[in-house]
Amino acid sequence: MKHTIAVIAGDGIGTEVMPAAISCLDEIAQIHDLSLDWNHLDWGSDHFRATGRMLPVDGLETLSTHSAIFLGAVGVPDIPDVETLWGLLIPIRREFEQYINLRPVRTLPGVPSVLRDERPIDLVLVRENNEGEYSEVGGRAYRGLPQEAAMQQALFTRHGVSRAARFAAELATTRSGRVTSATKSNGIIHSMPFWDEIVAETLAEYPGLTLRSELIDALSASLVLHPWDYDVIVASNLFGDILSDLAGAVAGSIGLSPSANLNPEGRHPSMFEPVHGSAPDIAGKGIANPIGQIWSGAMMLNQLGAPRAAAHLEAAFEAALAAGVRTRDLGGTATTEQMTAEVISQIRAL
Amino acid sequence: MKHTIAVIAGDGIGTEVMPAAISCLDEIAQIHDLSLDWNHLDWGSDHFRATGRMLPVDGLETLSTHSAIFLGAVGVPDIPDVETLWGLLIPIRREFEQYINLRPVRTLPGVPSVLRDERPIDLVLVRENNEGEYSEVGGRAYRGLPQEAAMQQALFTRHGVSRAARFAAELATTRSGRVTSATKSNGIIHSMPFWDEIVAETLAEYPGLTLRSELIDALSASLVLHPWDYDVIVASNLFGDILSDLAGAVAGSIGLSPSANLNPEGRHPSMFEPVHGSAPDIAGKGIANPIGQIWSGAMMLNQLGAPRAAAHLEAAFEAALAAGVRTRDLGGTATTEQMTAEVISQIRAL
Ligand SMILES: CC(C)[C@H](C(=O)O)[C@@H](O)C(=O)O
Ligand SMILES: CC(C)[C@H](C(=O)O)[C@@H](O)C(=O)O
Repeated sequence: MKHTIAVIAGDGIGTEVMPAAISCLDEIAQIHDLSLDWNHLDWGSDHFRATGRMLPVDGLETLSTHSAIFLGAVGVPDIPDVETLWGLLIPIRREFEQYINLRPVRTLPGVPSVLRDERPIDLVLVRENNEGEYSEVGGRAYRGLPQEAAMQQALFTRHGVSRAARFAAELATTRSGRVTSATKSNGIIHSMPFWDEIVAETLAEYPGLTLRSELIDALSASLVLHPWDYDVIVASNLFGDILSDLAGAVAGSIGLSPSANLNPEGRHPSMFEPVHGSAPDIAGKGIANPIGQIWSGAMMLNQLGAPRAAAHLEAAFEAALAAGVRTRDLGGTATTEQMTAEVISQIRAL
Repeated sequence: MKHTIAVIAGDGIGTEVMPAAISCLDEIAQIHDLSLDWNHLDWGSDHFRATGRMLPVDGLETLSTHSAIFLGAVGVPDIPDVETLWGLLIPIRREFEQYINLRPVRTLPGVPSVLRDERPIDLVLVRENNEGEYSEVGGRAYRGLPQEAAMQQALFTRHGVSRAARFAAELATTRSGRVTSATKSNGIIHSMPFWDEIVAETLAEYPGLTLRSELIDALSASLVLHPWDYDVIVASNLFGDILSDLAGAVAGSIGLSPSANLNPEGRHPSMFEPVHGSAPDIAGKGIANPIGQIWSGAMMLNQLGAPRAAAHLEAAFEAALAAGVRTRDLGGTATTEQMTAEVISQIRAL
């Protein structure tokens, strides 16, 4: 089966880690008899400078015909994030109903956790990716006057919460069966008791699973104190955003972490991107760590229905790290190219 | 000058750490020639069971005549948090315009940080404590129907944000001069660019200070990766709630952390409480760590205009920890009473 992938390398190190990941994916495709066709789109900040838009007018239409979207990173110092992100990332997440943002976090060979206690961490953040605290509703009144105020409406729907909870439940049945739900329902926040109810209702359909709701403040502390106790964590848009960066930092893997913006039913293409940004400070030097992009590629293979190819690619980059090849961010000296070559040789060896 | 303090020991270990802290404060008062008068109020969950209220009808009126409120902990397993917290804690915070929640976080002698890197941490969270994400506005529609939805309005005012920012700025002038503001303004969240603007505007009046705004997701990660780089952090109600627990966990001091709910102008009494809860699992055993309550007492002395007494008390509990006396939560065997006795003997020795 042939898969046509829309490639948006974007800005900064996005343009360096993208070719690295594609060469690993091409290698994997050959071994697993997959046909991956790359359609390179030059959207990003240069395109914005030239046209005033991050996405062309028919950009979403163009993307819609692809099997998946493979994104590097967008963002440059001289254009506000709000343009680059809300001009590209967020419209894609929303238009294509990518209502799950999936972020695995685990300790990796040769990548030390910041914690003194070295127990392995292996958890997955299931973040609701379309609604909640990130609703479009809000604004500002009385600009410049003493009574000036700004409002942001958090909006949670049964539709939105239950499908996120269901995804987390299904995922948990393939793992330990433990689901933690991030909440803040001990106070006035009106939306969180609703979140709790819908999550509990949905999980009740899965008798094999256990559900624990934890307050976001206590959960943030627990992810520092005993992250190895967590498996699947389901969280709202904002809480998931915070917890995934936090857990990645704890595991030491934040610069290597992948993410998948999923439309689980496959009605629309899903999008795969590393958690790291365009990193203007190290762009152009050929020293960026390509693992986040490669790992995102493995998540893409999973979504494309090739789990064995995905597992092969993951095993290969883990083996490359275990072999001691490290980029500068991990205290090594390997270039992007050297790291990629090692992953490719591990793909062949495994 | 005579200070009459309203004492609400509350529930669980609140009733154990409160007498411990009071005996330390009495000792300090004698040395520094302060007159502290304790007015014990038996409000808490038993009062709720008997009367259906956490606070008596005239409770706030009663409290209003005191110089300060010294709170232990409220909450028991069989009464929902929403009753105990919104029936007591939150009305006090709001009625008395305790618009700052101040939470110092630092590494303490003999209390290991969870981090491998042992650099000392010494920061203060300045949390806006009256508005923001915790507004009263919100609700639920279409209960039980497929289109059911819940809403929570975050509401930020110029009045509310600027006074929090001003407090942080004033505090920073007594410390390193570095202020970090927690934000989330790279997305759609309408309220945070407003937060950023007001914070920047307020800080601009203090030319000696430097201000850095950091996105809440990145900041959460940074507090795990290099917490020693932070000094004063100003944050909204929800972000401050999350960050203070997180930073406390990183420093290893979450069970020992104090907090002050301040009405900085002193128009109303301020309230001092440890960050830990009523800990029903260890209540009644005499093994609770009293440091959080004692430290909260030191913050109270500061607010009462006795900074030298406050510093004396802080030095004493640090010396007690340095001397190796530890309660069970810190891996020791000392009882609440033994720990308290050591603090008192350090007060006398210093
Ligand atoms: C109990 C709860 C409402 C409260 C809060 O979020 O403010 C608590 O977590 C705190 O930090 O004091
Ligand atoms: C860029 C920003 C809007 C985004 C988010 O908060 O979703 C980012 O932090 C992420 O996690 O992908």
